[in-house]
Amino acid sequence: MQRFKLIVEYDGRPFVGWQRQENGPSVQATIEDAIKKFAPGEAPRVIGSGRTDAGVHALGQVAHFDLERDMTPDQVQGALNYHMQPRNTVAIVKAEAVDSEFSARFDAVKRHYVYRIANRRAPLTFDAGLKWHVKTPLDHEAMHDAAQILVGQHDFTTFRHVACQAKSPVKTMDYLTVEREGDEVRLLAGARSFLHHQIRSIVGTLKLVGAGNWTKADVQAALDARDRQALGLNAPPDGLYFKHVEFEG
Amino acid sequence: MQRFKLIVEYDGRPFVGWQRQENGPSVQATIEDAIKKFAPGEAPRVIGSGRTDAGVHALGQVAHFDLERDMTPDQVQGALNYHMQPRNTVAIVKAEAVDSEFSARFDAVKRHYVYRIANRRAPLTFDAGLKWHVKTPLDHEAMHDAAQILVGQHDFTTFRHVACQAKSPVKTMDYLTVEREGDEVRLLAGARSFLHHQIRSIVGTLKLVGAGNWTKADVQAALDARDRQALGLNAPPDGLYFKHVEFEG
Repeated sequence: MQRFKLIVEYDGRPFVGWQRQENGPSVQATIEDAIKKFAPGEAPRVIGSGRTDAGVHALGQVAHFDLERDMTPDQVQGALNYHMQPRNTVAIVKAEAVDSEFSARFDAVKRHYVYRIANRRAPLTFDAGLKWHVKTPLDHEAMHDAAQILVGQHDFTTFRHVACQAKSPVKTMDYLTVEREGDEVRLLAGARSFLHHQIRSIVGTLKLVGAGNWTKADVQAALDARDRQALGLNAPPDGLYFKHVEFEG
Repeated sequence: MQRFKLIVEYDGRPFVGWQRQENGPSVQATIEDAIKKFAPGEAPRVIGSGRTDAGVHALGQVAHFDLERDMTPDQVQGALNYHMQPRNTVAIVKAEAVDSEFSARFDAVKRHYVYRIANRRAPLTFDAGLKWHVKTPLDHEAMHDAAQILVGQHDFTTFRHVACQAKSPVKTMDYLTVEREGDEVRLLAGARSFLHHQIRSIVGTLKLVGAGNWTKADVQAALDARDRQALGLNAPPDGLYFKHVEFEG
């Protein structure tokens, strides 16, 4: 038996999310079903570094699984991509053989996300479902400035989904950066781990700042409230991308 | 009557091309049909700076049309985008009122295109139909070097579709630049005008150079042959984007 580590890219639009669910296609099930096609008789379980929600995308999700059949990493990558045809909305960018102790979930020490906003009046063509469309002109510098309030260790109860299953609402944001390139405003976020809807809650709040509806002090007050009701706005999944994962060593 | 200039963005995947045709949806017809919805009784004719082929995209196509109905540019932009819903694969990025002598086609003095290649082993997810997928590693520096042979004034018979209707095969390429950003290899091209399939023919040829199948001397020989049969490869429409247009003054 060999454990493999995968770097996975996916367009989240057709999926109910990363995790296998009864109500529709998931990324996890797509990969597991592909493995069964080239390794019949095996019951693979694919574990990801993070469970992305419906409509959320990945550029560098990491996953692992065990395979009984003797195959090289290149063969695994090729077979997976082949069996996810013809409509590849999931692609295995890389496969490598790893120690059987490796866990994509528990060994991840830093997760990086990017959230993309299309800040323009015109409707989206290429980017429909791939960016959040915000027509109001956004002041990205004010957004970046207000975001710094949330960097460091805080109780993020305001910025967490009511159904979030994490034991503690206390998380440490390593960085939050808001930048603009043309009509795209991007938030870059990194932390060991995130709460459910945390980035979308942060982006929604910063959008209010960028549009001039909220001040930096309002963000501070929302954080201090430790109350989901104090959240200004939750951003849609469209613009969220799981970018990459860092591991120990 | 007022003439309007439009900056038009479109995802070419669903279209038979820019020009109105009997055999399927075109960008021109999509815009003309939208105008008829807010200006009933008028018979608008939308003229573009360039006629893109089936599957070719635009970031900054320019077009003009005349409107009898009294509307501001902002109203025209809003009404056009509204009436091209719900599936906006065409977006009017900007509308402005121009002199009735202005022609998007005849006043254009420089047209700029970009051609995108996804140079990686993994299949495409987000970019299927939006980039040319080339799995062989490409030497973009060799491609750039060979491209310089084609800059300047030449007889481009080898690099033109047999059905091209231009009077002369002689064109002047202002620049051809090949660059790489991660796994994307891009060709940037600028000229007053292009022949039918000229950029796709150039990209196909440079791909052979990048993959090591052709030398710079082979490109020179193909150009000198002035014979379509000497072309190595025509690239698919997927990666081609009409980027922007320059006008006099």
